[in-house]
Amino acid sequence: MFKQILEDMVNQTPGGVGAVLMGYDGIAIDQHVAEGDDVDLQLVAIEYSNVVKEIRKTAEILGTGELQEVSVKTGRYFVIIHAVSPDYFVALTLTRDGNFGKGRYLLMRDTPRLREALA
Amino acid sequence: MFKQILEDMVNQTPGGVGAVLMGYDGIAIDQHVAEGDDVDLQLVAIEYSNVVKEIRKTAEILGTGELQEVSVKTGRYFVIIHAVSPDYFVALTLTRDGNFGKGRYLLMRDTPRLREALA
Repeated sequence: MFKQILEDMVNQTPGGVGAVLMGYDGIAIDQHVAEGDDVDLQLVAIEYSNVVKEIRKTAEILGTGELQEVSVKTGRYFVIIHAVSPDYFVALTLTRDGNFGKGRYLLMRDTPRLREALA
Repeated sequence: MFKQILEDMVNQTPGGVGAVLMGYDGIAIDQHVAEGDDVDLQLVAIEYSNVVKEIRKTAEILGTGELQEVSVKTGRYFVIIHAVSPDYFVALTLTRDGNFGKGRYLLMRDTPRLREALA
């Protein structure tokens, strides 16, 4: 069920490379990578789980409220991360010519479905 | 000169709370905080410089290209961070009902001016 939601997200986002549902402990629950892409999504997710943990800690220290979304733009990719629950997050990776706004929208739309599926 | 650019950014962004130009070493060069806001921008910036360092390291490990932009949405704020140079970044904080898109646009527009002013 996770897989289908992740797959739809990647397929419906122009430039979508992959999506992964992951625990803050760095262990992926499920993922989908677009065909033809050789991105090591597992590695990406583990690395970003450290980043997200750091940001979560920061938000706590600063009292700026719960972490909801992080997006990162690098030379090659966009990565958009949404908090799903206190233990899990979902990360969507797209190419730089991909549709960032659509990706954000789909994450926002589908995060509640992932949350329900986790419960 | 930094100050004026930062001030314009904050004033021109609906919901703008503050902007800070900062080194990855956590030392601020200059900042502007909107009147009436009691945000400890210095603290925010120091905390986020750790986050940005972590993300930069991650982008390096993953070979995903240079870090350009990070945005964080928490319960109370948006924080948008732009890389200015290999040593400096600029962070713009806005309230959750602020105009995120306008903030991103202004950071994109003014980052080259900050880069020139640093040179």
